[in-house]
Amino acid sequence: MSADPRLSLNQATVKHADLATALRVTADAGIQAIGLWREPVNEVGLDVAARMLADSGLRFSTHCRGGFFTLPEGQARVAALDDNRRAIDETAVLSAAGAPGSTAVLVLVAGGLPEGSRDLVGARERVRDAIGELAPHARDAGVTLAIEPLHPMYASDRAVVSTLGQALDIAADFDAAVVGVAVDTFHVWWDPQVLGQIARAGSEGRIATYQVCDWKTPLPEDVLLARHYPGEGVIDFGSLTEAVVATGYDRDIEVEIFHADVWADAPARVARRTAEAFAAAVSPFLP
Amino acid sequence: MSADPRLSLNQATVKHADLATALRVTADAGIQAIGLWREPVNEVGLDVAARMLADSGLRFSTHCRGGFFTLPEGQARVAALDDNRRAIDETAVLSAAGAPGSTAVLVLVAGGLPEGSRDLVGARERVRDAIGELAPHARDAGVTLAIEPLHPMYASDRAVVSTLGQALDIAADFDAAVVGVAVDTFHVWWDPQVLGQIARAGSEGRIATYQVCDWKTPLPEDVLLARHYPGEGVIDFGSLTEAVVATGYDRDIEVEIFHADVWADAPARVARRTAEAFAAAVSPFLP
Repeated sequence: MSADPRLSLNQATVKHADLATALRVTADAGIQAIGLWREPVNEVGLDVAARMLADSGLRFSTHCRGGFFTLPEGQARVAALDDNRRAIDETAVLSAAGAPGSTAVLVLVAGGLPEGSRDLVGARERVRDAIGELAPHARDAGVTLAIEPLHPMYASDRAVVSTLGQALDIAADFDAAVVGVAVDTFHVWWDPQVLGQIARAGSEGRIATYQVCDWKTPLPEDVLLARHYPGEGVIDFGSLTEAVVATGYDRDIEVEIFHADVWADAPARVARRTAEAFAAAVSPFLP
Repeated sequence: MSADPRLSLNQATVKHADLATALRVTADAGIQAIGLWREPVNEVGLDVAARMLADSGLRFSTHCRGGFFTLPEGQARVAALDDNRRAIDETAVLSAAGAPGSTAVLVLVAGGLPEGSRDLVGARERVRDAIGELAPHARDAGVTLAIEPLHPMYASDRAVVSTLGQALDIAADFDAAVVGVAVDTFHVWWDPQVLGQIARAGSEGRIATYQVCDWKTPLPEDVLLARHYPGEGVIDFGSLTEAVVATGYDRDIEVEIFHADVWADAPARVARRTAEAFAAAVSPFLP
């Protein structure tokens, strides 16, 4: 099989596959790159994971994920920051193990409001503070932190960073090689400012990763699992992808799907369907 | 019973009550104003509804709702615009029938993407065009059209107007007496730009109505029914209400809740609970 050379399969799309399976079905589908998740990597151990990745011949596109640092000062916050430093180190190791063209990008999901809190402004400030604490470590490791704005329906319980513009405002305090943003169509497609903010992200050198999946309604009961194969929903991948391409972004493009039906399907079939969906919905807009 | 003199009960909060019941429980709870919905008004007929409203002694705060005009050119669009003109006329009649201090505000929900469409930009342009067609009729009737941005989770199927800033950009083409915006905490609380956009809305004279209800997770299976009594969720009513008050907004403040449990409750109890929740969560921030 062949697949678009820009496509990367985000491992969450085959959530129930272990690392070996994820690597195998990705390569078997002709996909050249993969984005990994911390849990399956740590299940085999980082060194083993790195060797498996190297043996697969795949590029490494992102590591998922760091973040969850909206907690106020205290032990839990210290532990979260330490865990983020480990995630940075993992990212560097995996990036070095991946095939040429691999990138060292750690995706950051900010986290929601702390239990019982209504202080959204304060939680957002703590995200900025946490990134400030992590940035030196990331720079030393050669890793780019990618702040991912999540759809506003997750603002209270998953990510207080809700728009690309807001993510860029946070990133602006830092070197673009160290802090960038993740542009995920599912999270930003609705934003009236999205095309302008993609252009801004490009001109500021901040697009650390571009991810695609689709939106459709009705939403499932668990709105975390509302992501679909590109082309199955209402997102206009043409305008968004062309806007990203226009910035000069020329690296891997991940498909990351959280959906109960996709997770229940055989990983090999999911990888093939991902390649097909990407070819139909996204490839036509790539140079 | 007494209630905050600024509180208005939006009729959708007692969805299964007929007009007579809605008016009665509102007055019985000591609430001085009500926002009506077209369906229960038209169930008794406009003239009868106006007389019932007058007899109730309540102020009339908004009429809900017009809009749903993202359709492309054709018969369905013409019919939608005609229906909006009727809604404007109803608003004028009801406003005249309400107690002194009533306002003539028609809330507009833009509508989602037409079936099979991915053209969000085009749908948004059609909202602007439709308002342009309705504005002369609204001006003649003395009615303000209130563009309501809806939470982005409704962008595909309910309302392509997703932020207060976007609503203000559309309104900017028109006289502020004719086209304003609805500020509903549920829809805008997550927006990193919300406080600035409320100030902008005030300085542009565009706040046609301020509505309050709360957000919490997990969302229910039908995300349309995710609205809670003020104080039950995570919204900071202090900062939002103070921002609205700072603009000089001095009219009624509606509570509009869509929730299966609230709708299943006795209307009289819902009206009382609304008054209590408003007094606890919103009144402390009113002058």
